[in-house]
Amino acid sequence: MVAGDQSDPVDVLIIGGGPGGYVAALRAAQLGRSVTLVERKRVGGLCLNEGCIPSKQLARFAAVFASVKAFAGEGMPALAGPPDMAAFQKARAAAVNTLVGGVESLLKSAKVTVVSGEARFVGRTRVCVQTGEDAVRFFDFKDVVLATGGDPIPWAGAPFDGERVVEASRALEWDRVPESLLVVGGDYIAVELAVAYARLGARVAMAAPGERMLPAFDTDLSAAAQRGATQAGVDVRVNAQSESPDGYERVVISLGREPRLTALDLGAAGIRAPFSPDAQMRIDRHVFAIGDVTAGVPLAHRAMMQGRVAGDVLGGKNSAFDSRAMPQVVFAEPEIATVGAGEGHVARFPLAALGRAIIEAKATAGFAKLVFDGEGGPLIGAHLAGPRATDLIAEMALAIEMGATAEDLALTVHAHPTFAEAALEAAEVALGRPIHVRPKPVAR
Amino acid sequence: MVAGDQSDPVDVLIIGGGPGGYVAALRAAQLGRSVTLVERKRVGGLCLNEGCIPSKQLARFAAVFASVKAFAGEGMPALAGPPDMAAFQKARAAAVNTLVGGVESLLKSAKVTVVSGEARFVGRTRVCVQTGEDAVRFFDFKDVVLATGGDPIPWAGAPFDGERVVEASRALEWDRVPESLLVVGGDYIAVELAVAYARLGARVAMAAPGERMLPAFDTDLSAAAQRGATQAGVDVRVNAQSESPDGYERVVISLGREPRLTALDLGAAGIRAPFSPDAQMRIDRHVFAIGDVTAGVPLAHRAMMQGRVAGDVLGGKNSAFDSRAMPQVVFAEPEIATVGAGEGHVARFPLAALGRAIIEAKATAGFAKLVFDGEGGPLIGAHLAGPRATDLIAEMALAIEMGATAEDLALTVHAHPTFAEAALEAAEVALGRPIHVRPKPVAR
Repeated sequence: MVAGDQSDPVDVLIIGGGPGGYVAALRAAQLGRSVTLVERKRVGGLCLNEGCIPSKQLARFAAVFASVKAFAGEGMPALAGPPDMAAFQKARAAAVNTLVGGVESLLKSAKVTVVSGEARFVGRTRVCVQTGEDAVRFFDFKDVVLATGGDPIPWAGAPFDGERVVEASRALEWDRVPESLLVVGGDYIAVELAVAYARLGARVAMAAPGERMLPAFDTDLSAAAQRGATQAGVDVRVNAQSESPDGYERVVISLGREPRLTALDLGAAGIRAPFSPDAQMRIDRHVFAIGDVTAGVPLAHRAMMQGRVAGDVLGGKNSAFDSRAMPQVVFAEPEIATVGAGEGHVARFPLAALGRAIIEAKATAGFAKLVFDGEGGPLIGAHLAGPRATDLIAEMALAIEMGATAEDLALTVHAHPTFAEAALEAAEVALGRPIHVRPKPVAR
Repeated sequence: MVAGDQSDPVDVLIIGGGPGGYVAALRAAQLGRSVTLVERKRVGGLCLNEGCIPSKQLARFAAVFASVKAFAGEGMPALAGPPDMAAFQKARAAAVNTLVGGVESLLKSAKVTVVSGEARFVGRTRVCVQTGEDAVRFFDFKDVVLATGGDPIPWAGAPFDGERVVEASRALEWDRVPESLLVVGGDYIAVELAVAYARLGARVAMAAPGERMLPAFDTDLSAAAQRGATQAGVDVRVNAQSESPDGYERVVISLGREPRLTALDLGAAGIRAPFSPDAQMRIDRHVFAIGDVTAGVPLAHRAMMQGRVAGDVLGGKNSAFDSRAMPQVVFAEPEIATVGAGEGHVARFPLAALGRAIIEAKATAGFAKLVFDGEGGPLIGAHLAGPRATDLIAEMALAIEMGATAEDLALTVHAHPTFAEAALEAAEVALGRPIHVRPKPVAR
């Protein structure tokens, strides 16, 4: 078949059914557009199938396993044996299937046509989708959304072999805990994996290429993550550019991701990478790009927000991606969360002075560090380490978006005894009138 | 000694060293007042010594115990035996001692004079403190703060005997799990105790006098709490006004609290109860009242905010208690949290549609229910059931205080996958454009 024969005209074509693509599809369909979504594997993308969701399920499982040990000194009995990872894998698959089924059902209900296959451009408004070994379909679109996500960056020390040396996604599928594990990388994915498997009993070494773990995070958070990982049993090595993979049963690589664009044959459509879309997520009049193919942190919630904006714009709404606050979270020991700036009028409150933390075994090493735009100014950053930090950051993100000041945070009643009180206490520190720590000059 | 002899003149006298009193003391001292604090037991009051803190420590311990069972289907091994409650009691006492020591140290550092004893008025500006069996001291104050808290209301069915039939505080001190337990009451304290002991292996019946548990909460939250308690093994009985205490090893009563005022001999100072202080927490020019002696919900965080305001006003600051949002939280199964109004433009998002909840064993029964002041209006209420709800309510309280609308919540990026996303999704429901549930007309 020649390109151009039997082409189906479509309204909006979305390439990639991850959290960016499926959200854009649902939103555009809500607003009356006719949407065709091309996905080469399963909808939900990397995040839902082999990233955010299963990694958090593993982290949560490992955290429960560890919490029993943490409470041993309070009278908690020990666990009767090792974790049954084969059973865990069944539960993981079931959870992923539930979520994929949910997204499929939402897409169906919204009358989004899902086409299974790999897409490539064959013209400015035409895409060819390889739907089977010998089967292709052609689509002529009015608007197209590029949402193909990313591929893992390989390690110079050893190539991916799909078995012993693997990308992070594969490490979520093991049906037993490896005896020994080398984690190459220092990003949140590397930290989560290292801590989870150490908690479950593996001998874990972590080789972070930079001078600290979580190099994109506030330095205090890096230090907290490194202390926590070490306490969880991880042998943390920084500046580890030439670690040997020998002597480990498994090696997992997490050195970041790069946009997955090659298969798209962008040249055929005259589209140039890299993508830095405008606030409407356009890179050209009828071409949108969202998620991990765009410049910026590769995070599902960023992709989802971009997908909502792209869907709005496709539906004729006046919408823009102008989030001031982009939170990042790490499900490790302790939980870590960050949003916004690290420099400014800084106030810190240690969880060692917080009632709710003192009754939580081993939780007192955490802290809330808030950053204000000058004394009396609005919150511009927050950096949290400790239990529930991954959820507590939501209040901080809202505070930044709403322009809340330290006074606003301090005058909002926070329930007692909760971890959320740490933000109130830090706000009082910023105002020079702390209650549960001694008043002292504010740092920086 | 006759009243009037050898009286010490003091500047600010605070009667009661609980979360209201000690916070007022610290704040007033920060602002230059000379403060004397009278406490009959230990500083920190009921909350810190025998209420909020130890009850949450018990709830948290029981939650860890229960989480192992909840994750059994995912491959979590069983616990090797029953909980060691004697060890738990040591840990509880240690945590309380840490916190009491912290407050004592803060008071000392702030140069607050702490007097140990029971206070009563002997004149308009004079108080007598019984500091020992045969010892009294007299103080003449410029300003006085009444912060003596409350006493538990007894049950008509059986008097407190300090052993088998007890108030809630005593039930936190047991060094073994009772075989059978009757909890009389339906407030958050009753719910927390019933669920904790059921989780730890007691046969628990709960006799709630009203037609539902948590009668002061949103009805959906009452229903969630009742389902959760039942699943935790509690035999929940409502409209249970004439339950028999017979046949239970232990009986714990939680039927509310009444202001603890008798010992104060208010008549000698011409002070009249009940107390409904003004926004500056005054009930008279030089008389302040804060915490559980005042009309309203008896909650530590309310007392602390009132204490901050009273301390500010005593220190000459223009301060007022005008919180729009007063959160209430319950550490049970599930966690429950509420703030603000229950009626208005209501939007609901079920945790069954939330990725983070699907990977958390048995967490999908929860929900986020948001209430807006009309379509497009600001948030005026939030009602959460599910993991971490007690901390997630902080974002909702801030949203209410800041006048945030559904649009503001929906346009704030919430990290994925977190429980905090439920509020974002509910905000999208309110806007008629949900992503992860099918669009449908908004209820009410």
